[in-house]
Amino acid sequence: MKLKNNTVGVLGAKDPSPQSYEIAVKLGNILAERGITVICGGLSGIMEAVARGMSEKNGVSIGILPDDSPETANQYITYKIATGIGTARNLIIINSSDFLIAVDGSYGTLSEIAFALSKGKTVLALNCKWKIEGMININQPEEVLNYIE
Amino acid sequence: MKLKNNTVGVLGAKDPSPQSYEIAVKLGNILAERGITVICGGLSGIMEAVARGMSEKNGVSIGILPDDSPETANQYITYKIATGIGTARNLIIINSSDFLIAVDGSYGTLSEIAFALSKGKTVLALNCKWKIEGMININQPEEVLNYIE
Amino acid sequence: MKLKNNTVGVLGAKDPSPQSYEIAVKLGNILAERGITVICGGLSGIMEAVARGMSEKNGVSIGILPDDSPETANQYITYKIATGIGTARNLIIINSSDFLIAVDGSYGTLSEIAFALSKGKTVLALNCKWKIEGMININQPEEVLNYIE
Amino acid sequence: MKLKNNTVGVLGAKDPSPQSYEIAVKLGNILAERGITVICGGLSGIMEAVARGMSEKNGVSIGILPDDSPETANQYITYKIATGIGTARNLIIINSSDFLIAVDGSYGTLSEIAFALSKGKTVLALNCKWKIEGMININQPEEVLNYIE
Repeated sequence: MKLKNNTVGVLGAKDPSPQSYEIAVKLGNILAERGITVICGGLSGIMEAVARGMSEKNGVSIGILPDDSPETANQYITYKIATGIGTARNLIIINSSDFLIAVDGSYGTLSEIAFALSKGKTVLALNCKWKIEGMININQPEEVLNYIE
Repeated sequence: MKLKNNTVGVLGAKDPSPQSYEIAVKLGNILAERGITVICGGLSGIMEAVARGMSEKNGVSIGILPDDSPETANQYITYKIATGIGTARNLIIINSSDFLIAVDGSYGTLSEIAFALSKGKTVLALNCKWKIEGMININQPEEVLNYIE
Repeated sequence: MKLKNNTVGVLGAKDPSPQSYEIAVKLGNILAERGITVICGGLSGIMEAVARGMSEKNGVSIGILPDDSPETANQYITYKIATGIGTARNLIIINSSDFLIAVDGSYGTLSEIAFALSKGKTVLALNCKWKIEGMININQPEEVLNYIE
Repeated sequence: MKLKNNTVGVLGAKDPSPQSYEIAVKLGNILAERGITVICGGLSGIMEAVARGMSEKNGVSIGILPDDSPETANQYITYKIATGIGTARNLIIINSSDFLIAVDGSYGTLSEIAFALSKGKTVLALNCKWKIEGMININQPEEVLNYIE
């Protein structure tokens, strides 16, 4: 797909498997090297892993936090947005992103995947148990690049 | 399940099949006769059908609207809550309900189902194509009563 | 003003003076006797007082709660809406109401008063230190009735 | 005050006076030169002016948009956050900022000023008709620097 806004949203759980955490770090590396901005939930788990991967390659990550204080962000986030609106902040991540990548994830991530699909957005998924018509399950972080013009 | 708050959320699409519309009207009848309050999105389609069914039996329905004006509610809604927060209002329906019933529905409804499951809420589904681990697909509106203490 | 939706929003602090608490109870009595629905924040202080006053006269009050659980509402609220969006729920109270009445109140209440005025809504204020161009400061709860057609 | 997060929120109207527009451009210049990130509403008027001033000096501005599409941002915004939650996005600007600067502004801006004060944040105001206990009215954009450690 074409990146109108050069921005990718990364979705995933607070408590991923170690393997999923590593995948998300690598994903962050790849997106940063491509000069893409990542938007994520700003907390721990996959959100931390992707921001960490971005930070290793001097990429910019934006954390959309549920709480009303920027101090709740993980240490790798470049710009901290303290929404104060709780879980409803998930929709902001999706609305602000050209497309979405889910890593691992449980019901919360499925809710975000389905919301993204309802908005007509492309959703890629890595190491993800959900298989919903319309989403694209891939196996390696590098494959993400096949989907970007 | 036990109804702590005597409140059920009804989820579903703006453009359901005629069959699903009828099911939702009947569901409204059943819930109203049981004295349960229904919370829904307040607009057309399934949201209108269930409110209509409630209204036929003098039940109370609360419409959680995406827009910032109560005038956007369908004519059967008893109490109109104009959130002004767009689609994020879906989460309010779920947070405010003891359990959820989905009728028909596409990606938007799947997103709500998954969010409800992520919050540990029971989700029943009628005439619904989604089959997600944890949700309960039933065939007739009357079966809803089997799940209420 | 004309009540299109028969709904009044009541604003005010969590920690009012005893005098303001009493005024809000009386206000609830008056609005319930008139058959008006009250929307408020659902917590303690003025929110509790007005819901208590409503409840004494069998009126209906709707509590728009900041948290994601209905259990946080005060005991007098008829319908509990658990938004999960924190303080942003204040805007829902205003958007859903035909007009607003502020009782007592500090900066949070001023923020709500100004938001209501920005939306073109009438704002009455009782025992309130704020005097903003456009709001109407009154002295007794009974005076509210002078402003309702 | 000390900037924990190196981030200032700029508030103001969509339709400011030409003089206020110029003041906001200059304010953007000053904040960019100081290396501060600006958060604003991302639309026209003061929001455009400050982002324009930032952009002239290669500063970073973040636009917190009411709509659900990044395309609604003014052309000077660096990072576009599409909240989809309407006016409730104002609270995100305030929650995410170390302190706030209001330029010009009507009731909407007053609502934001009061919300910021309710959260214990410092509020400076330039060319602003509101004079609320607790906010600091200043005369020149350069004076902002006196308040930053």
